[in-house]
Amino acid sequence: MSISQPDGSADRLFELGDVQLACGQTIPQARLVYRQFGKLNDERSNLILMPTSYGARPADLAWTVGPVLDPERWCIVIAGQFGNGLSSSPSHGGMGLAEQGWLVQHSDNVAAQKRLLEEQFGVTRLPLIYGWSMGAQQAYQWAVSHPDCVERLCCVCGTARTSVHNKLFCLSLRQALTADPCWNGAGFDGVPEQGLRTFAFIYASWAASQPHYRGMTEPIEQHVEQQWLPHYRRHDPSDLIAMLDTWMAHDVAAGGDLQTALATISARTAVVAGSHDLYFLVDDMSREAEAIADAQFHVLESLLGHRAGNPHSSLPEQQHLRRIVDQLMTS
Amino acid sequence: MSISQPDGSADRLFELGDVQLACGQTIPQARLVYRQFGKLNDERSNLILMPTSYGARPADLAWTVGPVLDPERWCIVIAGQFGNGLSSSPSHGGMGLAEQGWLVQHSDNVAAQKRLLEEQFGVTRLPLIYGWSMGAQQAYQWAVSHPDCVERLCCVCGTARTSVHNKLFCLSLRQALTADPCWNGAGFDGVPEQGLRTFAFIYASWAASQPHYRGMTEPIEQHVEQQWLPHYRRHDPSDLIAMLDTWMAHDVAAGGDLQTALATISARTAVVAGSHDLYFLVDDMSREAEAIADAQFHVLESLLGHRAGNPHSSLPEQQHLRRIVDQLMTS
Repeated sequence: MSISQPDGSADRLFELGDVQLACGQTIPQARLVYRQFGKLNDERSNLILMPTSYGARPADLAWTVGPVLDPERWCIVIAGQFGNGLSSSPSHGGMGLAEQGWLVQHSDNVAAQKRLLEEQFGVTRLPLIYGWSMGAQQAYQWAVSHPDCVERLCCVCGTARTSVHNKLFCLSLRQALTADPCWNGAGFDGVPEQGLRTFAFIYASWAASQPHYRGMTEPIEQHVEQQWLPHYRRHDPSDLIAMLDTWMAHDVAAGGDLQTALATISARTAVVAGSHDLYFLVDDMSREAEAIADAQFHVLESLLGHRAGNPHSSLPEQQHLRRIVDQLMTS
Repeated sequence: MSISQPDGSADRLFELGDVQLACGQTIPQARLVYRQFGKLNDERSNLILMPTSYGARPADLAWTVGPVLDPERWCIVIAGQFGNGLSSSPSHGGMGLAEQGWLVQHSDNVAAQKRLLEEQFGVTRLPLIYGWSMGAQQAYQWAVSHPDCVERLCCVCGTARTSVHNKLFCLSLRQALTADPCWNGAGFDGVPEQGLRTFAFIYASWAASQPHYRGMTEPIEQHVEQQWLPHYRRHDPSDLIAMLDTWMAHDVAAGGDLQTALATISARTAVVAGSHDLYFLVDDMSREAEAIADAQFHVLESLLGHRAGNPHSSLPEQQHLRRIVDQLMTS
């Protein structure tokens, strides 16, 4: 494994060897996918980590480099979470689902990312971890698990603990897939076309805001079919389930007191809630921010809903995020 | 068919004969279920109509009589919409789904209710139509289709036209049912157990608010299984689909200009939005209220979400609704 040109144009694979998860299962010959943008400086002090969101691969988040994070100044590493189909995933074999006693937790993702940064980049301290959605979850997990490694934290549209309602949303998605005729009780015997369609309808209804759809003239069935379904159909459905289980299990306090866990965060923290996010609520994110010393709390005004935090095609939200990051980096 | 004691303790059936729907199909030997509470006065001027909400039967809404509507003063008739399993429904035979070219529209429900009131009660003018959710949709349809018949209107958590996002929610529910292995492309070969489970998860996530679930300690899977699933499993799944199609097709302007249609309403109108309703939004309901001459607009503060408008077990919302109705009846 060698570091090639850091142009971010290609996925790299970091080989972890066998990795034991917190659940007790072991991923054989585990690997993490990542992309690197910008150059690591001689002091190895400019590496920004961006863990991936649900279903995302590094290429999906690469738009962030430039509009939000400056690759001239920073070495930006986008690291894929387990289950995303490029990092180790059930679809590769060797990993199971909850039905077989498997669960990847964000502490597992963070441990693997920590090894990537240490062994591949020689980096042990990060000026920033930036994450959207499940990426924000991993950022929180980093800051709680390794407070000495994280100087700054920017958590966009994601919480430190999955709320009960958010779990309900995830369960509706999981149930949609396992309700398909292709589900055999332990896995899929084929492509769950009907389950994926239900999944896409549910996701489309939650991940944008209600007013986002107000002016839409395109038939909504066609919109979901063309704009949402392909994002999920490209995945192995077992991988979709594995990432949902990670999402639902997420809790930096591991069942303990959340305020206490958040109080251990020493990173300079920016918490960014989407004004119309339907599952990572402004109120929930604000409450968590209050438990973190000196955290800045921002509301990103946008009808994009949860997707306001991943505004690949919308300049106002990009600019707002850039201002938040710039402010955070000078604090 | 005779009018028995108006104690509301039993469902009555009003026989309509063959009923041709706006879609062109004919329901053979159609019938409407209803319950009557309170006595019709000699002038036949005290009958309040309450059309039913999604999946509801008259008994489900009977709690309203007393806490919200006074049966000492009013003769209250709760009339079931087509598809609810007691009024004519696909499960009775003789009716099909969209897959066979069938669609019940609220104009069909209203036409049948109008005959019930005229032929069974001799009533042609109503002091109030009160409706929650799909009941509010029917109330709006009444006021637009028959402005001379409706003196007052109270629309709780329901709009005059189904929004695009609300249609998306309905489509996710419909797709959840038809994704089940029991769906044969035209109907169900058995009970779609898995589809109904997905349906219940989706419904539970939307019909209450996110903060409603905040303090819940009961496992959420168990909560949905015990508190939500039975409400839908009691129905024939074809009936659930038929009512969804009615919901999605709802538009008092029939594709025309909504503001113009609402401006034709002459009834004294109270529009009541739930502060945390996730699909009949405060903004959407407020905008409709503004298009109705002299409409009163109220926000029902409640974490019950959409269900704030059907607060069978919550006194504060009941009392607020009672005050709104009392105010409306004296105006």
